Amino acid sequence: MKTFVYAYLDDRARTLILDRLPDAIIVDKHSIGPEDRARFADCEVCFGNVPADWIPGSALRWLQLESIGFEYYRAIADRMSHIAVSNLKGMFAEPAAETALAGLLSLYRGLDILTLAQKEQRWMSLEMRERMGLIAGQKVVIFGLGSIGGRIRDLLQAFGCEVTSFARTAPEADFRDIEALDAVLGQFDIVVSALPNTAATTGIFDRARLDRFKQGAIFVNVGRGSAVDEAALLDGLTSGHLGGAVLDVHLQEPLPPGHPLWSAPRTILTQHTGGGYADELIDKTLFFLGNFEKFETGQPLHNLVDLAQGY
Amino acid sequence: MKTFVYAYLDDRARTLILDRLPDAIIVDKHSIGPEDRARFADCEVCFGNVPADWIPGSALRWLQLESIGFEYYRAIADRMSHIAVSNLKGMFAEPAAETALAGLLSLYRGLDILTLAQKEQRWMSLEMRERMGLIAGQKVVIFGLGSIGGRIRDLLQAFGCEVTSFARTAPEADFRDIEALDAVLGQFDIVVSALPNTAATTGIFDRARLDRFKQGAIFVNVGRGSAVDEAALLDGLTSGHLGGAVLDVHLQEPLPPGHPLWSAPRTILTQHTGGGYADELIDKTLFFLGNFEKFETGQPLHNLVDLAQGY
Repeated sequence: MKTFVYAYLDDRARTLILDRLPDAIIVDKHSIGPEDRARFADCEVCFGNVPADWIPGSALRWLQLESIGFEYYRAIADRMSHIAVSNLKGMFAEPAAETALAGLLSLYRGLDILTLAQKEQRWMSLEMRERMGLIAGQKVVIFGLGSIGGRIRDLLQAFGCEVTSFARTAPEADFRDIEALDAVLGQFDIVVSALPNTAATTGIFDRARLDRFKQGAIFVNVGRGSAVDEAALLDGLTSGHLGGAVLDVHLQEPLPPGHPLWSAPRTILTQHTGGGYADELIDKTLFFLGNFEKFETGQPLHNLVDLAQGY
Repeated sequence: MKTFVYAYLDDRARTLILDRLPDAIIVDKHSIGPEDRARFADCEVCFGNVPADWIPGSALRWLQLESIGFEYYRAIADRMSHIAVSNLKGMFAEPAAETALAGLLSLYRGLDILTLAQKEQRWMSLEMRERMGLIAGQKVVIFGLGSIGGRIRDLLQAFGCEVTSFARTAPEADFRDIEALDAVLGQFDIVVSALPNTAATTGIFDRARLDRFKQGAIFVNVGRGSAVDEAALLDGLTSGHLGGAVLDVHLQEPLPPGHPLWSAPRTILTQHTGGGYADELIDKTLFFLGNFEKFETGQPLHNLVDLAQGY
């Protein structure tokens, strides 16, 4: 089965693939050229998020994404209906939840300020103490109860937070109706977005909804940047209506130099590292190889997604 | 009952005290003089950690500390045996545990580096990912199972850590014998100290014991600086034997400018803010006033400590 690999790999991950699939075509994402597209065209299997315009007309039968999100393929969903698409759902739950908690705890416990003070060798213990808060007892609402949102919920509950959730499909969500949630949105100290990028989530945190946030509320986004009106978010942070933010994702990535979010007050940018961890390249490669075994023997694939639905 | 107040207060806390005890003598810790010592001498009740040498010969019958630790009084313990001493045990468990977790998560999820990169508006997403770790699954040993150590244990378990504990008296400790723990100390990814300052804990993290730590282990100290040989700790961090540290406490505080710990590699200094939170002055004042009620009516005080034992 001709296999094309277009994923970030290290030497260990590359070796794992070639041990199992010696004829796999492995390309370097940083230096692809027109000849790579031609080599892709007659491959039936692809591991990695190839450019969407390569797919129509190709021999592709199965695409194993190296992400959870797949919004880049939504526009051609109708031309990919014959192709099985699987994602890495679940693999990023733990790291993304730990990054969300790291950011929240840093804000509440002043580590953002202390890290900069340490660089200047400046002791500021007493002046810090009165601006420090506790996560314990905070009221939190989580938008999106996929694997990441669910893990964040569990961890925040362990810290003694009172957690409410909003999701359109997850059966255990407290709210499924955004209007009902809007009526009480001003009660939450922390608002977490772990939403995928779908038609329904685009711009869900618009100016009107951000205005409903409680004075001093903290906003966390480990989902997708597309969910947020960034200009309105910036206004909220600058005016002090919002108490701070932990942002892993942005509308434009890399965030360009000079973008006002870099220096927004009480804002921690985790630079889309939320899903990362040292062994992720090995783990995602093992996931692909496990699914390859299933594909080859006609068994159902893990983590099949519905391109048109968006999850 | 003549009452002397020598605690950090804000206006709200001061008002709370004067509403209940209009004749209380409240001094400013930052500008005490010899006349304050004279005013203290005939007070029976004191709230706050007065200088130890004021106490012998005074009329003091009850000292409500504004801390958990009380090592400053150990040298005169035999001359204070007629005085009830109570501390604030429990009040700092939540904030200190949150600071410990904030520091650990920042190290594992790279927020120490990302915070400095943000200041420079430098996007470094991909280069970060391979140095990021997960707390989930790490093996941790906690020294000290008081309220702080116990809370850290619970939170780390929620993150999926495998937690072992060492304490001399806590009944639920896994190890009570330091030699037995030493034999397996090299197995732990994270070593947390939540020890009080006692004769038995002074220098417990000496060079020999730090040498037993696993290659790359992270050291967290939210107990007392006296537990650690700081020169040996610095050597471990500089050589790379230790993978990093989160230090809330030091032998000398404030940590002087130029001290090598300020710039030790992969080290987060939280500047003895671990116990702090916005309402702490109110909470400790309410605790004092609650205990005052008990003292006045002859009921047993909360949080009585044994000066000679050290806890």
